[in-house]
Amino acid sequence: MDEFGLIDRFFAGLAPAGKGIDLGVGDDAALLQPPPGRRLAMTLDTLVAGCHFLPDADPEGLGHKALAVNLSDLAAMGAEPAWGLLALTLPRIDEAWLTAFAAGLGALARRHGVALVGGDTCRGPLALALQLTGFVDPGRALRRDGAHPGDLIFVTGTLGDAALALAGIQAGRRVSAFLRMRLERPEPRVAEGRALAGIASACIDLSDGLASDLGHLCEASGCGARVEAARVPLSPAARRYWDGDWAPILAGGDDYELCFTVPPERLDALAASGVAYTRIGKMVDGSGVTFLDERGQPLPPMSGYDHFS
Amino acid sequence: MDEFGLIDRFFAGLAPAGKGIDLGVGDDAALLQPPPGRRLAMTLDTLVAGCHFLPDADPEGLGHKALAVNLSDLAAMGAEPAWGLLALTLPRIDEAWLTAFAAGLGALARRHGVALVGGDTCRGPLALALQLTGFVDPGRALRRDGAHPGDLIFVTGTLGDAALALAGIQAGRRVSAFLRMRLERPEPRVAEGRALAGIASACIDLSDGLASDLGHLCEASGCGARVEAARVPLSPAARRYWDGDWAPILAGGDDYELCFTVPPERLDALAASGVAYTRIGKMVDGSGVTFLDERGQPLPPMSGYDHFS
Repeated sequence: MDEFGLIDRFFAGLAPAGKGIDLGVGDDAALLQPPPGRRLAMTLDTLVAGCHFLPDADPEGLGHKALAVNLSDLAAMGAEPAWGLLALTLPRIDEAWLTAFAAGLGALARRHGVALVGGDTCRGPLALALQLTGFVDPGRALRRDGAHPGDLIFVTGTLGDAALALAGIQAGRRVSAFLRMRLERPEPRVAEGRALAGIASACIDLSDGLASDLGHLCEASGCGARVEAARVPLSPAARRYWDGDWAPILAGGDDYELCFTVPPERLDALAASGVAYTRIGKMVDGSGVTFLDERGQPLPPMSGYDHFS
Repeated sequence: MDEFGLIDRFFAGLAPAGKGIDLGVGDDAALLQPPPGRRLAMTLDTLVAGCHFLPDADPEGLGHKALAVNLSDLAAMGAEPAWGLLALTLPRIDEAWLTAFAAGLGALARRHGVALVGGDTCRGPLALALQLTGFVDPGRALRRDGAHPGDLIFVTGTLGDAALALAGIQAGRRVSAFLRMRLERPEPRVAEGRALAGIASACIDLSDGLASDLGHLCEASGCGARVEAARVPLSPAARRYWDGDWAPILAGGDDYELCFTVPPERLDALAASGVAYTRIGKMVDGSGVTFLDERGQPLPPMSGYDHFS
């Protein structure tokens, strides 16, 4: 089976009509019609076996997560997902594996209106690269560099679930289905990101941990952040499981929630946005992220996932 | 050094102004302004150590070739290169390697006006994925599916140089600098592709070998091809080196030339296009590629590179 046979067979049905697709999988490049007057948001992420997932990871979950990670990047820009290109490196053609992978990726793609318009397959150590393009109106994209001192800091959902699940699995402990699902099947906050476009002053998705990612937002915006640790939302499952160590909550990775800032004058718009959020702190003059305990004392500095640590 | 530090440091200067870039490297996604009224051509290719190149390959050549392979896909669509996203998987941070890789990629990017607008780095077995977007006017893109019986078949440049070089290197033979350059530093036919837009009825780039790639064009167009093997252009270096075996010429890979078809009524436009080309055959009713020897007798069938053979 050649490259196109592979893509056609396993990923057929992932190129729905009506997305401006002149030509999808099967030529040297896809031909696409961008919507007039809108901007494109483009992201590329790689997942490598042994680094981002275990070689024996459930392929359906992997298909889901590969797309979820990329959709989370588009969510963080406030963009509407549109087109995807997939590069799959496989040690061999394993039909059961590919069928499950395509099912996991396909189910999430359909829910978010992502059309697979092209890609590449080759033989090698298991890895995949996924490139997504989304649409966003000019001037409404959520960037990292728009926060100002005085803006309030919010997050969607709950933090730490995935990090607690991973630590539990690695330690051989029993992990609840909810925590495991949060690790293996993250739900990218695409609707929330789009609703926040034009409201949030800055936004980032939490992939490497709150400490690290909010740190990137601070650096891009040229200010600092003070976060009250006790305000950081935990799920009931995480609360039952948690031993009181802040590290997995504040510096664990794989949350795939949005962290965003809103100027005080736009809090009414935020309340009316329909987004479920929790206020965790405030942007301040200075630099870096300071976490405060319940007595207002700084916690020791925390660092998140570094791709080369 | 984190992900952005890495990208910023080694690939700085690869995001020139004036390409509709609202936001390049450093956020969750790049924000780009597509040119009104044009189509986007989008391609994604992966190069994996041990599969597409040797792990100890010269990094400057690898940077060149990674981009050249993708540019060749845009050339085959008749598109103008614009934006690139790079995902780099590295076993470790090796500054000398990265400096050389970025130099090779950067030199070719500047010549073709490619702006690096984003990317991703992670630790793992050496591999890279490169996604390129180009622009092309509606109705002028070169596709694989537009050839008709009676159209003449052409190629740019010379074929077989890279395959002869690779076979020679693998056999421990002395290989001329020209043949080696053709293998390691292919020049994508971007200008030729753009000049052929609106003239050629179909086009494909030769990455897997003429037999295989022209076969794809035939399949997409629903007709066959008859190629006179003796018309296939060889370089003087290849002629000196060649032992008369057609396989590396007709079925060798890595040519990165364009193979295209032109209807008889557009031959004048082709002659005026400024493209250097050689006529090698004719599209016919039927299916598949038939190579003919100098007496008009069919050569045995040949197959090209299969990504999973």
